[in-house]
This record gives sequence, C-alpha cells and structure tokens, in this order.
Amino acid sequence: MASTANGSSSASRAAAVDKGVDFANYFCTYAFLYHQKEMLSDRVRMDAYYNAVFQNKHHFRGKVVLDVGTGSGILAIWCAQAGAKKVYAVEATKMSDHARELVKANNVDDIVEVIEGSMEEVILPEKVDVIISEWMGYFLLRESMFDSVICARDRWLKPDGIMYPSHARMWMAPIRSSLGDQKMNDLECAMNDWYNFVEVTETHYGVNMNVLTKPYHEEHEKYYLKTSLWNNLHPNQVIGTPAIIKEIDCLMATVDEIRDVTSKFSLSINMDRTRLSGFAGWFDVHFRGSMQNPAMHKIELTTAPSVDNTTHWGQQVFLLYPPPRVNEGDRLMISFLMTRSKENHRLMDVEFTYELQHSSGKRLPPVTSKFCIE
Amino acid sequence: MASTANGSSSASRAAAVDKGVDFANYFCTYAFLYHQKEMLSDRVRMDAYYNAVFQNKHHFRGKVVLDVGTGSGILAIWCAQAGAKKVYAVEATKMSDHARELVKANNVDDIVEVIEGSMEEVILPEKVDVIISEWMGYFLLRESMFDSVICARDRWLKPDGIMYPSHARMWMAPIRSSLGDQKMNDLECAMNDWYNFVEVTETHYGVNMNVLTKPYHEEHEKYYLKTSLWNNLHPNQVIGTPAIIKEIDCLMATVDEIRDVTSKFSLSINMDRTRLSGFAGWFDVHFRGSMQNPAMHKIELTTAPSVDNTTHWGQQVFLLYPPPRVNEGDRLMISFLMTRSKENHRLMDVEFTYELQHSSGKRLPPVTSKFCIE
Repeated sequence: MASTANGSSSASRAAAVDKGVDFANYFCTYAFLYHQKEMLSDRVRMDAYYNAVFQNKHHFRGKVVLDVGTGSGILAIWCAQAGAKKVYAVEATKMSDHARELVKANNVDDIVEVIEGSMEEVILPEKVDVIISEWMGYFLLRESMFDSVICARDRWLKPDGIMYPSHARMWMAPIRSSLGDQKMNDLECAMNDWYNFVEVTETHYGVNMNVLTKPYHEEHEKYYLKTSLWNNLHPNQVIGTPAIIKEIDCLMATVDEIRDVTSKFSLSINMDRTRLSGFAGWFDVHFRGSMQNPAMHKIELTTAPSVDNTTHWGQQVFLLYPPPRVNEGDRLMISFLMTRSKENHRLMDVEFTYELQHSSGKRLPPVTSKFCIE
Repeated sequence: MASTANGSSSASRAAAVDKGVDFANYFCTYAFLYHQKEMLSDRVRMDAYYNAVFQNKHHFRGKVVLDVGTGSGILAIWCAQAGAKKVYAVEATKMSDHARELVKANNVDDIVEVIEGSMEEVILPEKVDVIISEWMGYFLLRESMFDSVICARDRWLKPDGIMYPSHARMWMAPIRSSLGDQKMNDLECAMNDWYNFVEVTETHYGVNMNVLTKPYHEEHEKYYLKTSLWNNLHPNQVIGTPAIIKEIDCLMATVDEIRDVTSKFSLSINMDRTRLSGFAGWFDVHFRGSMQNPAMHKIELTTAPSVDNTTHWGQQVFLLYPPPRVNEGDRLMISFLMTRSKENHRLMDVEFTYELQHSSGKRLPPVTSKFCIE
C-alpha cells in the first residue's frame, strides 16, 4: 500500500495487507458487471439508498460528496441528480471504467469524477461534506470494507460532515431450521465416502489412509457445520427475541472498536416445543444524518428475516448440532465474540457460548461453538 | 521468491510471480484434503502411476527419487515401497504435514523425507535418479506446474536420471455437443434479464444503464461461450480424427518451448450430417523411461473421451457458435495458438482459426475464435 496523507492507524494497518493478495482474494469479484448487477437488482437496497438521498436533498444540494467504493457509480449519480456540486466516486477495480461511462451517459460527468484507486491511497483535491458508501458485507462486517470508509472519513470528511449511512447495528436471534440436519447428512455422506475410499486405497494401492481420517473429518465438519451459511430465513424461523449485539455510529467509530465484536446478552425463547437449530445474524443501517445536521426523512435499511423484503445479504446462520430442545419461556444467556481471521482480515472467526435455562429454572452447562465466516 | 541454486531461467521467471498472490490464486486449493481425495479417487490416474512404478521397480530399487508436488505423499510412498533408497517429497502447501503423517503411518518415514516449500526454493542434500510428479492440469498445461518440474529437473536430476512420466502429448478433435445450445440459451436468458433490469433501473431509479449493455454482453459471452468448459465427452461425440498438437519430452523440454503452444494441422470429419459444435482438447502421458534406461513395462495414462475410463481431468471443450454443418469427408485446416494469460501465468488464452473445406471442394473463409482457459 502506498503512502497516506496522515498516517492514520487504519491506513497503516491496511498497509500490512499485500495489495495483490487482497485483489486476488477480495476485490476481483467487484470488477465483474455480473456482481454489480446482483447488488443493483436488490430492490430493498436500492430503495433505501435512493430514498435516503432523494428524500434528503438538503444534505446534497450544492455539497461536495465522496462515494467510497462506487462500483457502477449508482450512488454517485444519484447524489449528482439530487443536486451535489461535486462528487468524487472512488473505485478500486476496473469497474471504475464502467462507472465513468455510466456517469457520462447519464449527463452528470460535469459533477461526478470517477477515480480508480483505493481509499487508502487516493488524494482528493478537497475535503467533503458527505461520505456515502454501500460498504456492508454479510452480517455487516464481513469484508471489513468499513475500515476503508473510516479511513476516508478521517482523511477527507469536513469537521461538520455527515455519513450515509449514519448508523449500523448487528442483530442476532435464535432460530429453527432444517439446514443442520441437511448439513449433518452431507457430512455423514462425505465420511461414508471417505471410509470406502480408505478401503479401496488400502486394497488396491497398498497405502493406509486411516491416519488422515481425523483431519478429513475436521475439514468437512468445518465446511458443513462450522462455517456460517447464507440463508434467507422466514420470520417464523426466529424463535426468540432478536438482540442487538453491536451499535456503530459511523461518524465516530474507530477500526479498533470494530475489529473485535463482543457481546453478552440474554433472550427468551418465544416458540414452544421446538429446537434451537442455531443463531442467525443480520444487520440494519440508518440514514439519520448527524445531530447538528439531521435527515428530514430518516430511512432504514434492514436485512432482518422477511417474506417480502429479502435482500442479497440474507442472514448468516450459525448451526448448532445437535440442536437442543427448547420451549417457550426458556432463557438463553449468550456470550458472542467475533474476531478477524489471521489468514484474511476480511473474513471472521466467531465464538458463541450459550447457557440454556429452562423455564423450570433448570440450567444446562454452557456450550461453546466456534465458526468461520468465509 | 528466494534464491535458486543456479539462476536457471525458469526459476528467475517464476520469481516475477508474487508468492502470496500465487497462493491465493492457485496453491490454496491443494491444501484441502477434499481436493487431494478427488485426485486420489481417480482410478485411471491412480492405476497408471501405480503400475508405472510397480511394474518398473528396477527404476526405483536402491535409487534416490524426487516427488515434485507430493500432495498427500502417495507417489513418494509408492516409490519407497518399490524399493527406493531415499525419496524427497516436496509440497508447497500445508498438505505436507498430512503427507508426513501418511508416510509415517505407512512405515516409510526412514525413506521418505517430506519437505514443505516450492521447488524453486528448496535445497536438497543431493541430486536424484528419478523425478516423479503428477503435474498435469486440464488440457495438460493449465496451472503451468510443469515449469516447476523443469526447474526441479534442471537443478536436481543427475545427468543420466529419468522422468516419470517421460513424455506428454496434447490432442485435439472436432466434436458435436449440446453444450453450445445450452450456453447460448443461458446467455440469452442473462441478456433478457439484463434488459428487464435496464428498464427497471430507468423507471424506478432514474439511471440509464444502456451504456453498459455491450460490456455486460461481452462479459457474459466470455463466460458462457468463450471460456473452455470441463466435460466428460462420450467417444461418439468425436466427429473427426483426433490430432496431436504438442509433444513433450519431459527430459528435454524447456519452459520457452511450452510457454506458447502453436500447431497447424488438418483433419477429416468422419461423421455425416452433423454439426461442428466445437473442439475438445485432452492429453496423455507416458512412462517409458529414457533411451539409455527404458521402462520394462511402458505405461500410458490417457484422458481421451472414454466410456469406462474417465478421469477427473475430463476434456476441455471450446465451443463454436453457431455450429457449422459438416458432413463426412469434409476437411478442417486448423491453426491453434495457446499462450499464457497476462494476468495469471497459470491460465491460458487460446486462439483457433479453422477453414472448413466441404467434400465438394468448396472452401469457406477462415473463422477465428478466441477462448480463455480459466
């Protein structure tokens, strides 16, 4: 990573990530129109940002805006259409070429300047009034793109500037789901297949593979049961009160505050005679402006389980197997810890410890489960 | 990349590839037991190497062997069981830890030494009599792993040493297939979906995406029609005489000789009233030993279209759309060029030019098609 304007800690920490590796592991998917279209086709996402901008034109009229990770350029174009004086639209991949074409074809090229580069490296001609960005990954923080938004804010936002979105929250809830049974079945099939393979390899090829049974099982258990799953849950799969596990003020948050997410919370099961198949994680973001410069119309974008308003984010599902029986009135005391993977700061490691207290008062010993968000 | 013993051109060219990027793009899949098992479950592959070694024990008895890219360690173990005095088993990924366990569990740890590292970097205590490796990718050269085998040979093979396999050939044949129609249909669906998307985005969000129609189409055409496909073809899909387009003597080949593959060849269509849906590429390798030290039992491993002896390599299919009509006796004059992708030396760019001459004598103008092997 090249030099930064002020050596802020977020930028210098980002400097430790090899740029080429980061591209190969992360950025490259965003260079595909296929991927951009997926996000642009997410009506809930589009409506939220569209309404946030156009129902709050006072925030944009005559103002200077920075769009972090502009992708196709859509947010930048909207800001220009809403009356911005100038929009800097920064995009790390070659998608910036397409953004430039789209800006021109929509006649806002006098306002929107598309810049190819990373937020940690680009130099803007001036500070900005508004930073807009769609940075949220699965369960909010996967991809760790908010680091780049923080970097942009610390470098380029005027002291009285505002963030779009202004706030973000992470939610968790206990769920019921058949996914655990499916994945356990897949794991058993994989192991049966493995045992056949061990036998064939010994019989036909004179090599005993048994010493690899344990690591093979671990690898597959991690893949099937210990890696969070993408799912679009039905609201009736939520079997207890959702809890907020993290709240972020986008104007104030530091990378240190979001690097580890820890939360201790309790909730009640509100469905009788069911199974705690696992936990679901999702997020919402809010467009409220700032205290001194609030939005006129406060918009919310939620990715909670929904029938009609699903998003491409879905929810992240953390399976518990075997799923304990639970009843209405049972209490769950949960300890949650999410940290960044050592191998890849854009992926996460999660550790849950939960204690189930039956409505009878009987308390089961705590159970700890670890997961990867990949 | 660290220093090499003799600054050979293959090692210094490899030095230009960023190690971390190469791992993220390439090596990482080989660290998974899932992937190793896939290859170990390929009976045709396993039988060929097993027979090559055990039916030619004279090549291994009392000898020093190097296994390039040992993976699980299977080839190294076989060489030890066939009587090798010493086997160096080099593996770039953490799979080497599993290989070490497997070697020990099979009681050949006094003979097999597993070394974690890349062939371009490791220092062996001595030169070797035999280099064994399973380095072949799709259509032989995808993955460019043979570069590492050449590097190993130039650095570590004794002057009278031998290679396992000793020879390799690339083949091409004209084929008929329904894949082209399927992919064209997929492309048309993708474009219909795109046109709907353009309309919605204009109507609901005030942004005209039409300027991106052409690049969106190009991206999808490349994905559906211009990227070679993996397939297990039935022999009756081959509609003309297969041609050898490249022959490699593993003892003599240089990286320069394999970096570009060019071939001009002709072949006849041997099926009447059919369509030239495209071309299939595959390979075979041979275990013949050397001229001075030949194999007693020459073994062949082929990945040609087959009913009973399919391999995990399948064939690579290059689609022509629309597929021209052809008849028995028609001639194809083909010019083939395969080069390494600039973005990733382990992937390939292919250019075909073919001229169809009907059995009547009528000659159609040459048609050029480009493809990516990803």
